[in-house]
Amino acid sequence: MTDTATNMRLKLPLTCFILEIIIIILFGVLVQYDKETDAKKWHLEKKSENKSDYENDFYYRYPSFQDVHVMIFIGFGFLMTFLQRYGFGSVAFNFLISAFALQWATLMQGFLHGLHDGKIDIGVESMINADFCTGSVLISFGAVLGKTSPVQLLFMALFEVTLFAVNEFILLSVLDAKDAGGSMTIHTFGAYFGLMVARVLYRPNLDKSKQRNCSVYHSDMFAMIGTLYLWMFWPSFNSAITAHGDDQHRTAMNTYYSLAACTLSTFAMSSLTAHDGKLDMVHIQNAALAGGVAAGTAGEMMLTPVGSMIVGFLAGIISVLGFKYLTPILEEKLKIQDTCGVHNLHGMPGVLGAIVGAVTASLASREVYGDGLEDVFPEIAKGHLSASTQGFRQAISLGVTLGIALLGGIVVGFILKLPVCGAPSDAICFEDNIYWEVSLIASKRPGGPGSEPQLEHI
Amino acid sequence: MTDTATNMRLKLPLTCFILEIIIIILFGVLVQYDKETDAKKWHLEKKSENKSDYENDFYYRYPSFQDVHVMIFIGFGFLMTFLQRYGFGSVAFNFLISAFALQWATLMQGFLHGLHDGKIDIGVESMINADFCTGSVLISFGAVLGKTSPVQLLFMALFEVTLFAVNEFILLSVLDAKDAGGSMTIHTFGAYFGLMVARVLYRPNLDKSKQRNCSVYHSDMFAMIGTLYLWMFWPSFNSAITAHGDDQHRTAMNTYYSLAACTLSTFAMSSLTAHDGKLDMVHIQNAALAGGVAAGTAGEMMLTPVGSMIVGFLAGIISVLGFKYLTPILEEKLKIQDTCGVHNLHGMPGVLGAIVGAVTASLASREVYGDGLEDVFPEIAKGHLSASTQGFRQAISLGVTLGIALLGGIVVGFILKLPVCGAPSDAICFEDNIYWEVSLIASKRPGGPGSEPQLEHI
Amino acid sequence: MTDTATNMRLKLPLTCFILEIIIIILFGVLVQYDKETDAKKWHLEKKSENKSDYENDFYYRYPSFQDVHVMIFIGFGFLMTFLQRYGFGSVAFNFLISAFALQWATLMQGFLHGLHDGKIDIGVESMINADFCTGSVLISFGAVLGKTSPVQLLFMALFEVTLFAVNEFILLSVLDAKDAGGSMTIHTFGAYFGLMVARVLYRPNLDKSKQRNCSVYHSDMFAMIGTLYLWMFWPSFNSAITAHGDDQHRTAMNTYYSLAACTLSTFAMSSLTAHDGKLDMVHIQNAALAGGVAAGTAGEMMLTPVGSMIVGFLAGIISVLGFKYLTPILEEKLKIQDTCGVHNLHGMPGVLGAIVGAVTASLASREVYGDGLEDVFPEIAKGHLSASTQGFRQAISLGVTLGIALLGGIVVGFILKLPVCGAPSDAICFEDNIYWEVSLIASKRPGGPGSEPQLEHI
Repeated sequence: MTDTATNMRLKLPLTCFILEIIIIILFGVLVQYDKETDAKKWHLEKKSENKSDYENDFYYRYPSFQDVHVMIFIGFGFLMTFLQRYGFGSVAFNFLISAFALQWATLMQGFLHGLHDGKIDIGVESMINADFCTGSVLISFGAVLGKTSPVQLLFMALFEVTLFAVNEFILLSVLDAKDAGGSMTIHTFGAYFGLMVARVLYRPNLDKSKQRNCSVYHSDMFAMIGTLYLWMFWPSFNSAITAHGDDQHRTAMNTYYSLAACTLSTFAMSSLTAHDGKLDMVHIQNAALAGGVAAGTAGEMMLTPVGSMIVGFLAGIISVLGFKYLTPILEEKLKIQDTCGVHNLHGMPGVLGAIVGAVTASLASREVYGDGLEDVFPEIAKGHLSASTQGFRQAISLGVTLGIALLGGIVVGFILKLPVCGAPSDAICFEDNIYWEVSLIASKRPGGPGSEPQLEHI
Repeated sequence: MTDTATNMRLKLPLTCFILEIIIIILFGVLVQYDKETDAKKWHLEKKSENKSDYENDFYYRYPSFQDVHVMIFIGFGFLMTFLQRYGFGSVAFNFLISAFALQWATLMQGFLHGLHDGKIDIGVESMINADFCTGSVLISFGAVLGKTSPVQLLFMALFEVTLFAVNEFILLSVLDAKDAGGSMTIHTFGAYFGLMVARVLYRPNLDKSKQRNCSVYHSDMFAMIGTLYLWMFWPSFNSAITAHGDDQHRTAMNTYYSLAACTLSTFAMSSLTAHDGKLDMVHIQNAALAGGVAAGTAGEMMLTPVGSMIVGFLAGIISVLGFKYLTPILEEKLKIQDTCGVHNLHGMPGVLGAIVGAVTASLASREVYGDGLEDVFPEIAKGHLSASTQGFRQAISLGVTLGIALLGGIVVGFILKLPVCGAPSDAICFEDNIYWEVSLIASKRPGGPGSEPQLEHI
Repeated sequence: MTDTATNMRLKLPLTCFILEIIIIILFGVLVQYDKETDAKKWHLEKKSENKSDYENDFYYRYPSFQDVHVMIFIGFGFLMTFLQRYGFGSVAFNFLISAFALQWATLMQGFLHGLHDGKIDIGVESMINADFCTGSVLISFGAVLGKTSPVQLLFMALFEVTLFAVNEFILLSVLDAKDAGGSMTIHTFGAYFGLMVARVLYRPNLDKSKQRNCSVYHSDMFAMIGTLYLWMFWPSFNSAITAHGDDQHRTAMNTYYSLAACTLSTFAMSSLTAHDGKLDMVHIQNAALAGGVAAGTAGEMMLTPVGSMIVGFLAGIISVLGFKYLTPILEEKLKIQDTCGVHNLHGMPGVLGAIVGAVTASLASREVYGDGLEDVFPEIAKGHLSASTQGFRQAISLGVTLGIALLGGIVVGFILKLPVCGAPSDAICFEDNIYWEVSLIASKRPGGPGSEPQLEHI
């Protein structure tokens, strides 16, 4: 089943080695420990500022970092294992491109956000930001899942991480927008970027692989592992880089309630939109997470618990409706084949989250936030911006994100079309056997037409 | 396979929407950020009490909260996936009722424990308590697993959460009992409540579904994911809401050793009670956890490491004996069909934990606890109670818990019997296909009697 | 399929009960709460040293402990489930011997490292150390997986833990070597000990069980759960017992980048060494973790981010080459049947890590470490040792570790050969049915030669 085009023996090792060697050289030249990870600097800081070890940022953020890390590798990785014959590709390509993207993101985000005397300082916060950026790439991976070679995926990650860092820089540093949980920077960006890549890579004859583009019982069970880890740890995701104290605390709690409400509306809508009232695992696996996406921008704000619930409740409804009615339209009319339905989980809920964030920001006041205003909206607290301007800039940020994602996705899509990337043909999509050693088990039934060796898959 | 009774198209969406809308309204009217999650209040507190951000309760409790959260959604969810054809129902109904119960519990526990100026203050501690209450509902779910519709489960959660909060209030606020890890409030309550519900919902013809009321190889593997997460994180569960400092530390460690000892006695008993010495996955999956249940009350006390081990050791023995000899009797004589054997994992070990807690409390003294007595037994430290009275109240608390659980379970059982709830018939229990879209895969073998489409399940 | 030799009905319960009762007696006599878990002592300490609860070591280390705990029970447990018919044995024997080993390790490490007035003081740090020691036993388990009875495994754990504690004592207390993440004490020791046990237990006719000594599709998916948890939490593993502050922070980050680079070189080498360029799950599951092993000694040092990456990059290459070319040689020439390839994941990368640690230590200077030198190299900081002597002692430590592991493994191997241990015969290795109740499902196809009940396994 392997032909020359999809044979990775030279392409994949070359790509991995070249990328990793470039990264190692750039790390050697540019990257250094920040003042909380460097032995000398931290001890100087402790002495000069009379600090204690428990004030090291490690203790504020490392538990959140590990939760985010689990979301990236287990959450996204297993969520995509729902395909019956693409478990290896889902979980292990997810592993590969994440391991690459987090290194590349350290460099790209470092160039744009963190240069100190020509050096990139790294610590737990940069690790979280690198994981966040990786999350965006994994969202795009969801749109093209099963239809791309690992070399294509590495190239996609290379370019997407770079554009992500540019967009993030414009939003957070130029426009002073707030987006701690990444409704815009991560979800909206990753979804629309991935959808555009999928559009350019449109496969008119994909129905030749249709029989594998669905789940079996146990693959749905594996996918639920991914879903639940994403769901449980989303409060950590949204709060991982918010300010210390009430900010992290409040963000986690807002996300918790948004997700809980979202889960109920997801179950309700899944049953309501089925002719026989039966629940659909696709909805449960995906739409129940939309509440976390939609609380990504406003989660750190004084959204109130009830506000969080309303946001999550709406996100679940929108997401199920998207899976049920919009995905088929996207495929038939717009020629966007979105394998995992990232438009429904990350696209629309991300836009919803951006809008909620803009509205909530425009209502910010010292009366509500007290001295906490400086943590959440430093520009408003300093008097540099009014709340309504902050809200307006949040809205502009959504537009910028959509623009960069859509344009970037188209350009990168064309790059990935180059034949050298080794994409599988339309008839062998969603199939691990192209890129993986899959054990062959001889049929146990002796003789007869069924006696040739068969792929063992379940 | 869907008939009118079990068709959820109207019932489930209506139930979810009505419950969620009621919750949203009540949250809007009653719930507010506490002083550690509210931007203004926390910054006022920091200023007036000269506090630092690392003193925010978030940093003391959020890692424990996340461990508890994993136990609720992955632990309980996957533990119940051992049934061969009920994986979706196990993990996803667990998801649904948990998402509902934690919201409802916030309200019910808030009414009874946390009203400030007519408002319910919420933060990480209330989130942990809500998850704890949810755990109790999931224990009851284990008793009726596979034999109930999602609507029945939501109603069960609605009433059980309410009664849980009442019982918890009586124990902790009226009787001043200690039960940080919930041997009584969570495990004993959830188990006996669930057993009574199962008793009322007794199905005389359940053996029509007998062939599905067992595990297959991979479903046992999925269940081990649940077991291990429960086992690993139980130290966090028992210590999540104990006092800061030595209390959290000691509780976690006591639980760790109780579980380790329990695991050895479980393996020993599983082999000893099998005629051919072969180990039984049911015991490993369940009885090895009894040590965590049994350390739920006394874990925060000065139980000593060896005391913890003895408790765990006994709990494992009791639990395996229960699975082997008591469960069949419960079913045949008392007509209690306990799908997961919650009586053996939560019922008896919970009672054991309550007794151990009462004895340990009655031995408390300032000599042993020093100034720590105020954290563990504030009423004894203040001289309001003697140690023996504390012990007596602990014992009374077990009685109260059993009373409310047994009576409450019977009443709620009868409510769930209402035909409108859409329970499955005796012949289609333990079957996902009733409430879920399950992929149909046409048999690949052409022609012959085996050629009709078959449910693909493994 | 059970014969007298492998019948565990008396052997296993007796072994478990005797071991657990000995442990309980020793705990009763020797073990007490340390000053951070004891109610009285902690409150005295708080008062006398004006400490706050957040200075309790629990808050510095418990999140790391839980990550390590997940690695031990889920990580190692599921990593070994790749065998098609040995899932129960992998995950549940892993569970049994870990639960035993962590208790025994508390005692053995306590005797050698932590006696205070004749008592063993325990707290979160001793819990982490006990889990670490357990990890070493699990590495050895990997070498003999599928070919040993649970009684053999318990005996192996008993002796290996004891020798581990001796070796650890020599390295850390006699030689003043540094090995926070255990490249030597855990990985090198566990691997070479296990390889020697496997050598002594060599089975010339193991190819009778060859058809079960491989994976199937879903067993590889379960194994990826183990891989990813090990990969994600390795930063916590290496940093769990390093000094507070920059040390924990830096160690976690070094490990994170080492693993990321290792993943890319693993994918590259896996594809490059396959004739058709297809990736091999065995490499991804194992070699991608070698970067964590290799950063075990130097991770806490000022290895620099780029240094960490280079180490991980090389570890991945070495590890894949080992799987591809060395494992067959070990089996054919040296008669070492290494089921999981622990030599490639833990053995060679452990030695690499020890060498990297020795070199990095010999370059330590106050110029680079500032006052942090006291945390990482207290003996150098105090002027007791020069950096080059420290480096030399690190190298000596590797030699000591190899010596004790190789000799100890041979001796223990012969003990495990005693017939009373109930090892399976060569023809029924890698088979759960020997020690486990495995559900029998009658073939659904009526009549004919296929109609006898068949083991249902997938």
